[in-house]
Order: sequence, then C-alpha cells, then structure tokens
Amino acid sequence: MVQATSLPRNEPGIKAAIGVLKQTFGDRLQTGQAIREQHGHTTTWIETQAPDAVVFPTSTEEVAAIVKTCAEYGVPVIPFGTGTSLEGHVNAPAGGISVDMARMDKILAVHAEDLDVVVQPGVTREQLNTFLRDQGLFFPIDPGANASLGGMAATRASGTNAVRYGTMKDNVLALEVVMADGEVIRTAQRAKKSSAGYDMTRLMVGSEGTLGLITEITLRLQGIPEAIRSARCAFRSVDDACRAVMMTIQYGIPVARIEMLDAMSVKAANTYSKLDLPEVPLLLLEFHGSEAGVVEQAEMFSSIAEEFGGFDFEATSTAEERNKLWQARHDMYWACLGLRPGAKGISTDVCVPISRLAECVSTAREKAEEMGLMAPMVGHVGDGNFHALLLIDMDSAEERAKADEYVGWLNDLAISMDGTCTGEHGIGQGKRPYLTKELGAATRYMAAVKAALDPDNILNPGKIISD
Amino acid sequence: MVQATSLPRNEPGIKAAIGVLKQTFGDRLQTGQAIREQHGHTTTWIETQAPDAVVFPTSTEEVAAIVKTCAEYGVPVIPFGTGTSLEGHVNAPAGGISVDMARMDKILAVHAEDLDVVVQPGVTREQLNTFLRDQGLFFPIDPGANASLGGMAATRASGTNAVRYGTMKDNVLALEVVMADGEVIRTAQRAKKSSAGYDMTRLMVGSEGTLGLITEITLRLQGIPEAIRSARCAFRSVDDACRAVMMTIQYGIPVARIEMLDAMSVKAANTYSKLDLPEVPLLLLEFHGSEAGVVEQAEMFSSIAEEFGGFDFEATSTAEERNKLWQARHDMYWACLGLRPGAKGISTDVCVPISRLAECVSTAREKAEEMGLMAPMVGHVGDGNFHALLLIDMDSAEERAKADEYVGWLNDLAISMDGTCTGEHGIGQGKRPYLTKELGAATRYMAAVKAALDPDNILNPGKIISD
Repeated sequence: MVQATSLPRNEPGIKAAIGVLKQTFGDRLQTGQAIREQHGHTTTWIETQAPDAVVFPTSTEEVAAIVKTCAEYGVPVIPFGTGTSLEGHVNAPAGGISVDMARMDKILAVHAEDLDVVVQPGVTREQLNTFLRDQGLFFPIDPGANASLGGMAATRASGTNAVRYGTMKDNVLALEVVMADGEVIRTAQRAKKSSAGYDMTRLMVGSEGTLGLITEITLRLQGIPEAIRSARCAFRSVDDACRAVMMTIQYGIPVARIEMLDAMSVKAANTYSKLDLPEVPLLLLEFHGSEAGVVEQAEMFSSIAEEFGGFDFEATSTAEERNKLWQARHDMYWACLGLRPGAKGISTDVCVPISRLAECVSTAREKAEEMGLMAPMVGHVGDGNFHALLLIDMDSAEERAKADEYVGWLNDLAISMDGTCTGEHGIGQGKRPYLTKELGAATRYMAAVKAALDPDNILNPGKIISD
Repeated sequence: MVQATSLPRNEPGIKAAIGVLKQTFGDRLQTGQAIREQHGHTTTWIETQAPDAVVFPTSTEEVAAIVKTCAEYGVPVIPFGTGTSLEGHVNAPAGGISVDMARMDKILAVHAEDLDVVVQPGVTREQLNTFLRDQGLFFPIDPGANASLGGMAATRASGTNAVRYGTMKDNVLALEVVMADGEVIRTAQRAKKSSAGYDMTRLMVGSEGTLGLITEITLRLQGIPEAIRSARCAFRSVDDACRAVMMTIQYGIPVARIEMLDAMSVKAANTYSKLDLPEVPLLLLEFHGSEAGVVEQAEMFSSIAEEFGGFDFEATSTAEERNKLWQARHDMYWACLGLRPGAKGISTDVCVPISRLAECVSTAREKAEEMGLMAPMVGHVGDGNFHALLLIDMDSAEERAKADEYVGWLNDLAISMDGTCTGEHGIGQGKRPYLTKELGAATRYMAAVKAALDPDNILNPGKIISD
C-alpha cells in the first residue's frame, strides 16, 4: 500500500463525540475494528486510514445532529456511500466519524411528468433503475460500480453514458445538504434551469464531502429509448480507433456510449467473459433513439469507421447480445486482474481534448512497455477520458515505485495536453499534488471556499485541498 | 423608474483610483456623463446608477491591473458586456469603475476537432456564429439579444435553444478569471469533463461579476446540423399547448427549440412582423438532425399536438421561412411594445417544473387580467421557463406599483410550485428579495463564498447578495 499522510488527531474530542453519539444512536454507532477498517478501506492502493466510529443515520435530521455534535467537539465527519471511490476519498487521516448512508435508501418521489426523481443518498444507481423501469424511465449515469447516488454526486461521477447524457454535474437538479455547522440547506428548486444566484448545486457536486453532507438528491431522468442498438468495430491501431471516435463526435452522431478497449483489455475480456473478440483495439458503441434512428446512427458510424480501416463491424438490437457485450465491459476490472493473478489493479484516470487522445493513449502505451508495466487501457473515448489499469505486485517496492512514477508521468502528460488529471475519479487523497499542478492559483481559491464553508475543517479533512 | 438602493460611496478612493487609471489608460478611461449613464443604463425599469468612470481594457493584464488598483483603493469594479441584462446587473450603487469588455473581442482559438473555441469576453454570440459558419460549427446558446459571451457566462444565460443544448452552465468548458485581488486564474483545462476539485467554472458562471471578472472563455461548440426543420402549431388554450410540450419532452423528442407565444404575443407579432398567424396560443418549434430525422421528429410532434387539439400545424425546412418565423420570435420584445405605444416593457422571468407550467401560465394570465395589466407572455416552455412582459406607463405611480406587486406575486407563485424566481435573467439588484425567499438558508452560504473570494466587496457590490 502507498502510505497516506496522517493529520493530527483530536483525541479528547473524538472520545467525547463518540460518547454523545452512542447515546443517541445505540447500536447504529459501531466501533469494531473490522467495520471501521471497511469504512476506511477503498479499492485503491492507498493504505486504509480507519475512522474511529461508523454511524448509520436514517434521516436528514440525524445527519444534522451528527454534524452538530462533531462540530461541537471539533471532530472529522466523513460521508460514506458504497466505498467504491478510487483515490482514498473515505479514508480518515485525522480519525473521526464515518457517516454511512446505507440506511438512507428511500426513493422519495418520482415526478414522471417532469422527468425527475428525489432520492436519499444511499440509493444505488441499480436500485433506482430497477425501481424506474416499469415507468419507462431511467437514470443514465453509469460509473460501472453499483455506487450510491450520494457518492456519485459527491464525486462528480460519470462513466460510459456521459458522452451523450453528461456527468453528475449535468444530471443533479438540486441537493439537500447538511453544512459544517449542522444547518440544512436546499441548493435549488426543482425547475429544469435557474439563474438564481451562485450555483451551489454544482459547487457541492464533486466536493467529495468536504463542503457538506448530501442528504437528498433531485436527479434528471430520461425516457427509456424506443430502440437501443449496440455495435462493435475492430481497428488496426489505437490511433485509427481514436480518429474514428473524433470524426463520430464531430459529425454529431448522438452516440450514447463509445468505449475503447485496447488489445490487452480485449484479450482479458475474451478469457474472463468467454468471448471471441478480435484481439486488436476495439470500439464498443451504443445508440439510443427511434427504431429508424438507431439503425441510421449505426450505419453512419460504420461508414466513418471504414474510412479509418475499421473491420469486423457488428451491430445488434437484441437485448441478450447487447447485455453480453456491456457486461464484458463492466467486468473489465476483474477481467484485467486475471491477466496477472495475485496482482493489485491500480486504476488511473486522465481526460484530454479528443484531438490529443490518440497521441495520449499511444504514448501511454509505449511508456508502460518501456517501463515494463502491464497496463491494459480502456476509455470513455467520446469524452477523451481513459484509464490505465496497472497490474502491480504490491509486495514489490520496486513495482510500487514504478507505478507511482507512471501515474505521475501520465497525469503530467494529460495536463501538458490541456487535459485533466482526473476525468471522473476525483481528487481524494491521491490526486492532490496533480490538482495543484493542473490548476495552480485556482486551488488557492478552492481553499478559500473550503475555509469559508467549513472553517474548522471537520468535513472530510485531507481531501481535495492540499494541507 | 423603480428606485434602486444606494450603497455608501468611498469618495476619496474613487477619486484616487480614477487618477491612477487615467495615467495608464488615457483616452480609454472615460468620465463623461453620457457614457457613464449608458453603462449604468440597462433595459430594466430599475433607475440608472452610473459608475464614476468607464475603462476599456484590451487584455487580461490590463483587467488585472484595473482590479489591483481598485482593490488598493477599495473601489467597486463592475464588468460590462453589452448592457442587455435585465435586473440592474451593471448598475453602480456605490459608484466605481465600469470595465467595458467591448475591445476584448478576439476569437483566440478554434479547435474544430475538439468542438471548442476560446474567446475574449467582448465577443458577441452573433460575431462568433458568423465567424464559425464556414467551418460548419455553431454556438447554440441564444438569449435573443446579441449579448457578449462574457456577459452570457456571467449571468448563466440561456434562451430558445436551451431545451436541447443546455444553458451557459453546460456550454462553458473553462474560464480565465481575474479575482478580487487581481490574481488571474484558470478554472479548468480544455478536457470535455473533469472531476478535478471544486467546480470553479460553474461557480463563476452566473456569479454576475461578483466573484471575479471573466477575461477568457472556452466554449463547447456544435456541428451545424445536416438538416433543420421548423414548425408551428396552434392550440385552443395555453393549457393544451403546455400539455403538448410536456408530452413532447417526455417522449424524448430532441426538440432544439419549443417556444410558446400566448394569443396577445401572436397578435403583436402579426402586426410588427407582418405575419398572419392565428391569434391563439402558438408553439414554434425547431428540429435539428439528419434529413430523415427532422422529418420524423416533426411528425412525432404533430401526432402529439393532435392529441391535445393542436391545429394549423405547418412545418418547413426552407431557410427563408424558418428565418422569418424565428425573426418574429426574436423581435417579440419590440412587437409587444407596439401593443401599447409609449409604454415601457418590464420583462419578468420565472421557471417551474414542466408539470406545473400550464397552471402557472394560466394563473399568471388570469391575475394580469384581474389587475388590469397588459402582459403578453412568451416562454421557453420545453424548460418550463416563461416571461411576462408588463406594458407599463412609467409616469404612473399606480401602474408602477401594480407591476411591482405583480412581479412579486408571480415570483412567489413560481417558488410555491417548486420553481425559481429566475430561469435565465439572473438576480442582479431586482431579484435579491426573491432569491432569499426561494433558497432561504443557502443564501447565507452564498454570502460566505462571496466574503471569502471578495473580502472587501469590491466586485459588483449590491448584486445577488442581499446587504
């Protein structure tokens, strides 16, 4: 594990706050080691920093009471969704109280006519979509993991559908938030658009629990499309595939998904998901629209792909085949781990202007080979976003150091291409140095906003803002 | 005119700052009464509060120098685009320096492959679209006025195309901003998405010059669609028209524009634009897509409209007829003024969940009639957003009071329907009391953000935040 910086602990405050909260929450406050470690544990390579207690509120009022108690005693509060974040977001470098939203899992209101829904933060995206299916509606953002919607809002999640439907920033209409002093605010009403003052909704989305705890979320929904068509196309090189993507976006084809798998990822998928895809760079696509529309979109894409030497183009509208394809994409993390049994997968995340994508991916591939790193790459390429999954023996200090060097190098490369050190994973603990490299002076004003809204730095300290 | 609150003036500071700036800017700093009043003048009914001087910078460095001087002397700085805002945004209630961005009108870079463009804040949307046309690209946000892109970003503008392409919040990728201390920051890189820390871009969009001065804007572009089809359809009632809109949105028809004109507006348009539209509630639509796609969209809409008693449906793809229709929509402000020669038009702006739109518009219509106010209504109804244009004799204290009462009543109504007191006009001076009604406690934290980023309150004071 990579060691995360620890922050000073307020030992007497933590003890006092736990005592007070125990009285209110009884068994819903847990201090056992396993549960604490599970709540510091993330799927990252950053070492676990367990909180001192985990509390399970069931209402906004309870969250507000927790925050008020923690504010009184100067104790850190770390909101917890499903723990699938990747940059140490839920760690407790100064100890404190993890607020697990799992029991705030109610879908509070569906407004089908307005295409929106109001949910508690512990509702997961799969839970929501299962609930909505009968009404012909769906929530499009899909980061892969069955994350909680509160966590997705807090980390500005996106994923495969973002090229068409945007990220969480585009799909959260309003939030209810418990602020650092325990006050409950609503950031917006339910209207589809607003120019009513500062955009507190967007300020909270992506703030990773450092500015407030999200207790209610109003989300935009979409009608389930009349028709869905999936396609795949093979390419001779990553470069050709990226050029086809660029042209597809420029032509305004409203692809719902356009994912790239490099040859190594395809190989992993074939083995893990028992497929027989050609082991070359591949694009997987999905088209949403009318029956005629999706066929037209797929045909337009196919012509573009041909120009760039695409081959083995296949399209299907049957649900079974579609699901098989996308299940393979979703299982990619596990599939890639299979390439090197016993290794840990370190997923890193950059996003560049699409014109630089081919160069960025190719250079990243060459660098990995040069450094002797096994690093399959997959990307939400319609947005210029891709991940390298470094397969590392965590017992080897040399490999850990190499991986660290590679991640730093790749972030620097993306930044030098006018891109970002994180398209969707967020900053957490792991990407703080790169944030400063990327945005320089702007981070000073982020720190000023943090200090204004959380003057005692009790909300998820040690994340986003560099100490 | 409605009197705007004045704030205390820092007389010696203002005098000193003007002296210093005059040395640098020479003739590009103007203090003549006419030009000062023009820069406090807005198209609103709020009285003009002229700045003490108007300065015309040509570069970011010059804007930073102006802000540094004003910071040193504690003097207000008010950014100015084209002055088409509607809620007193450019007034100078404490005096100070108006920073007119008209000479920062360069299109700095077009990245056609990435579908983005970098512009200075004084570039207007028509200037940009004229420039882009040859490259097959366009910038979709269209608030009606030929506003500056800096002003549009600062006020989170939207307009007729927002139902498909979103508002400025969705179309600004990154900003360069001069902060209150004169530091220049970039809020983001050029990547299409990012989760790199707090969303400073969205915090600045809609902040109306109160958190920083926008000196460069990176905007998302769209490819000019292969085909554009316009349509109009008449309805027996506003209620029927709104229901047809709701169904169109629910069906996921990707309308690019769906505008409602009430009967009074249609009458005004007929006279002003020499048209012969049926003088009943009307929907005007535009569809963007492939040749086949736009025909399909128009047909789907037509079937829906029929269900709600729509009649006189007409669709056209010829540019001339389309332009005539949309020109009439753009000229609506002037057309409506023609309904009562000599009157001033007070445009107010609310936005509600679309399920409440029919009720909101109908109630607003009844109330206007009950109060004896002439108030044609038009709306960007796909978003639940509409405007009432009150035609008022500003010499009559009684009429002014009635208009004021009506605006307050309508804002309260929208808020009570989970809507907002402003869908796109912003808060400025005029809507500050409604902002507090709408968002309550959240406005306290807006004030905290303002105080953190502009501790001496020199950036456009007296706007958004209530004193």
